[in-house]
Amino acid sequence: MANNTLGVVVRLAVNKGQEDEFSTTAMKAMVEPTKTVQGCIKYEMWQDHEEPWRFVILEEWENEKSHAAHLASDWLQPVMASLMGYASEPFEMQRLHQTH
Amino acid sequence: MANNTLGVVVRLAVNKGQEDEFSTTAMKAMVEPTKTVQGCIKYEMWQDHEEPWRFVILEEWENEKSHAAHLASDWLQPVMASLMGYASEPFEMQRLHQTH
Repeated sequence: MANNTLGVVVRLAVNKGQEDEFSTTAMKAMVEPTKTVQGCIKYEMWQDHEEPWRFVILEEWENEKSHAAHLASDWLQPVMASLMGYASEPFEMQRLHQTH
Repeated sequence: MANNTLGVVVRLAVNKGQEDEFSTTAMKAMVEPTKTVQGCIKYEMWQDHEEPWRFVILEEWENEKSHAAHLASDWLQPVMASLMGYASEPFEMQRLHQTH
């Protein structure tokens, strides 16, 4: 793994009872398309065991630039705006580099 | 990936100024040995870009049982107790399953 690989952890919470609808919609509209974006090494959505309304997206990008370009991409903006309709809390994004 | 794979995200914060010492110690005493534990698929430590005193451990285990056995293992207890000496906040552990 190159040293400039960017890790991203996004934590989000959705309205209780909307977990399955959110999951299905987010997988189709955001997760699957993002996997094909240039510079994307990994993009996985995970669901909390104890609190199923909490989701975590675990990402790896070739570098900061590819992640920034993704966030600014035209197709993503309306998708994120739509998915935010399920949110019960502001989402959190943490950017990381791997320790060696 | 099997459906019962357990994802674990651990978030921790260490005393400012002790980031490098913590990182070196944790890699040697906890991260590297854990990678060899039976049932461990992935065990990576990442460091926050903007707040370098924050670390995230991203784990994958074959199942809940292998993770529980790891947490209960004799060698890990004193290692964790020692590493907690660097902590500036209580650590958080989130257990996850991947959405499909």
